[in-house]
Amino acid sequence: MTWEDLLKASEDDALRELFDLVRIPSVSTDPLRADGVRKAADWVAHRLTRAGVPEVRIVETPGHPAVIGRWQVDAGKPSVLVYGHFDVQPEDPIELWDSPPFAPEVRDGMIFGRGAADMKGSLLTAIHGVEASAIANGGHPPVNVAFIFEGEEEIGSPSFRQLVRDERETLRADAVLSADGGQFSDDQPSQTIARKGLTGLEITVRGANTDLHSGQFGAIVPNAARAAAELAASFHTADGKVAIGGFYDRVLELTEGEKAEAAAVPWDEMATLADLGLSTLWGETGYTPQERIWARPTLDINGIWGGFQGVGGKTVTPGEAHIKLTCRLVPDQDPAEIVNLIRSHVERHTPTGCTVDIHGMEEGARPYVVDRSDPVYLAVDEALTALYGTPPVPLRAGGTIPATAVFLDELGIHTIGYAWSGSGSRAHAPNERYSVANFLRGRRGYALLLDILARAETSA
Amino acid sequence: MTWEDLLKASEDDALRELFDLVRIPSVSTDPLRADGVRKAADWVAHRLTRAGVPEVRIVETPGHPAVIGRWQVDAGKPSVLVYGHFDVQPEDPIELWDSPPFAPEVRDGMIFGRGAADMKGSLLTAIHGVEASAIANGGHPPVNVAFIFEGEEEIGSPSFRQLVRDERETLRADAVLSADGGQFSDDQPSQTIARKGLTGLEITVRGANTDLHSGQFGAIVPNAARAAAELAASFHTADGKVAIGGFYDRVLELTEGEKAEAAAVPWDEMATLADLGLSTLWGETGYTPQERIWARPTLDINGIWGGFQGVGGKTVTPGEAHIKLTCRLVPDQDPAEIVNLIRSHVERHTPTGCTVDIHGMEEGARPYVVDRSDPVYLAVDEALTALYGTPPVPLRAGGTIPATAVFLDELGIHTIGYAWSGSGSRAHAPNERYSVANFLRGRRGYALLLDILARAETSA
Repeated sequence: MTWEDLLKASEDDALRELFDLVRIPSVSTDPLRADGVRKAADWVAHRLTRAGVPEVRIVETPGHPAVIGRWQVDAGKPSVLVYGHFDVQPEDPIELWDSPPFAPEVRDGMIFGRGAADMKGSLLTAIHGVEASAIANGGHPPVNVAFIFEGEEEIGSPSFRQLVRDERETLRADAVLSADGGQFSDDQPSQTIARKGLTGLEITVRGANTDLHSGQFGAIVPNAARAAAELAASFHTADGKVAIGGFYDRVLELTEGEKAEAAAVPWDEMATLADLGLSTLWGETGYTPQERIWARPTLDINGIWGGFQGVGGKTVTPGEAHIKLTCRLVPDQDPAEIVNLIRSHVERHTPTGCTVDIHGMEEGARPYVVDRSDPVYLAVDEALTALYGTPPVPLRAGGTIPATAVFLDELGIHTIGYAWSGSGSRAHAPNERYSVANFLRGRRGYALLLDILARAETSA
Repeated sequence: MTWEDLLKASEDDALRELFDLVRIPSVSTDPLRADGVRKAADWVAHRLTRAGVPEVRIVETPGHPAVIGRWQVDAGKPSVLVYGHFDVQPEDPIELWDSPPFAPEVRDGMIFGRGAADMKGSLLTAIHGVEASAIANGGHPPVNVAFIFEGEEEIGSPSFRQLVRDERETLRADAVLSADGGQFSDDQPSQTIARKGLTGLEITVRGANTDLHSGQFGAIVPNAARAAAELAASFHTADGKVAIGGFYDRVLELTEGEKAEAAAVPWDEMATLADLGLSTLWGETGYTPQERIWARPTLDINGIWGGFQGVGGKTVTPGEAHIKLTCRLVPDQDPAEIVNLIRSHVERHTPTGCTVDIHGMEEGARPYVVDRSDPVYLAVDEALTALYGTPPVPLRAGGTIPATAVFLDELGIHTIGYAWSGSGSRAHAPNERYSVANFLRGRRGYALLLDILARAETSA
């Protein structure tokens, strides 16, 4: 039997399995629901074993457990490492769901449930695809396949680097396939060729050592809320550029070819404005919105607070205020260097009479660019073209996946997206949904890719 | 028995009474704590009645109730109206208190508790002083005394004007004695000859209609937290002036004589800096700190907030942020006009891509100057000189008592400060404190002043 026939015959079972997995409330952000994450780990480990993966282990971490596995076939064949996670976001606000988040159901061809799109559905496509490929191939897949599924992605993967470092032997591969992510749309595949890096810090601005009466002291002491506003406003120029000295020094300008790729993205500015209730966009002048998303670094004020926030008025001169900010970084910016540049800026722009405390993020993420000559990148291109009937568009993502930097640092390999959720999946939001058609396409996709990789002249 | 003996004999009871009153959490800014304000009104009304005041009433308003009373002795004698309030500021941030705000205690000669200094302590000095004076004088005080204690001072006295208008017959007097306020220091008395006015507003800054993922949207949509910071920073110039167009147009410059009075205030800048943990003061250039406190208007950011304020990081582009601000006004600025000028400024400075909502205060307070030839002003001068052994210095106060403008408008009389809290009282802030010695001195002060007024050739 071909893997096509095997996957076709098991479609009903596949959906039932996905329902089983979505029913497990594996919310990693809530310590009271740690049991759900562990139950999902057990479920995934058993399912990998049942698929025939000979070496499957649940690995304990300081937080939630992870599941790793390896199907070693032949050291002379290519190896890929499938990455994913079985934890999910909280379901809040639950009153906005049309059906219970952990009681999945299909409506209008979509599977509704927390985690269906992010990313229990795509996690199963990888297991099912490899399983069918192995059966069709006579008992094992045509290339070496390793798996790493974590239970802490939704809380920032705090144990992930140490886990990958400890398990590097089991996880060795030519490239990572990330089953986390999605395609540009249901008709248009895409390959993510870059992800922005991330760093950030928190600033405490202090004036007087206590809040004071604005009538007695407002005319003579520094107001920490005003000072924090002044400082937060100092990070950008009037034309939307980041005003930190040296911030752009290492930024690689887009080539003409890359600008053409950005311009080719079928993105609808008017629809975006309408959807977000905006009359106009904002950002760095001199670049199109897509160029800014793709390749321009940003400094984002994530939070600011100080003084009285309650109902009514309070005539106080605040003694303390706070700013949280993060930066999205592009090649070749370095997270640690950027934090130092921001520190210098803050020290130079400390408002009169105030002091500042700066706390950097524990670990930033470097910006990330995929090697488009990588054989796995080329194999994914071929597979997506076959699955969708049209070649994928190259995309750069504004978002950051810390795991990609870990794989590059610890295993020396790139991460290629190979996932199926749609742009309207509402990941992290109420009524999260995952298309049945994409689920079925994704299962075929994993089996197909292994065939393509086996044919390619990839050296192990 | 003399009132001196009576007050001496009742010192322990007096402190116990103040503790009882401070224990009532009469926070007028919080609608959920309206019961506390009412409980304080009941307490004050009962205490006035027990002091012998024949006509005491709790008066309902659209907001919190007030307490009024009158002890009419002789139409041929002078009349004074004692003003005060029994509501208090919120206790936030509660974690900065060394003892619970509504569980008063004495440490190092100071009574710690929310409202001890502002102004339950001085409110009691008036009641105790009048009570002792009446007993010593044979059953009634030597002059006519009326009382008005409100429960809305800390929210800007919204019902006060109508209340005074409705009760003008009960409240008629030659002058108001404000038990709200304080003295320059524990050794140096002062008379407040001017008070700043007050107005304010709250601004909501809106970008996108929801918080967004900073990686996907930070480069292309307006960030409401950044925008609020930009707007809040736009209200001042680099030299500490208010940058609102027209803000200073009606401000009367200090005369040379007034500058000399300001310079004569025995104020210790180094001690103030040390007490507040500051290395330098802040404020409008071109004026001394005392001149700024006395006679320069201010715009104070009382609160700013938007986006994520929790522990750790959240890479969000906030959709909404908020600013609360108030202005301290000087002659001849007009509160309503200033609000309009700020509105125009905000509209002109609305950050790119954002919208703003502006909510003004319902009723501001005009700035206020006392008539220094008023007989009650002169009687207070004599009483303070006797109590402290040194004559009072004239002061202009940065603080605002909206009531003073109301008394002038509705009753045609001036307000003379006669209160006892110290410059280090931390009113409105954590660890608010009121000196036991000043509390006891204030009780004697009210009895003494009535004797002086009875002797003076004051026409009723």
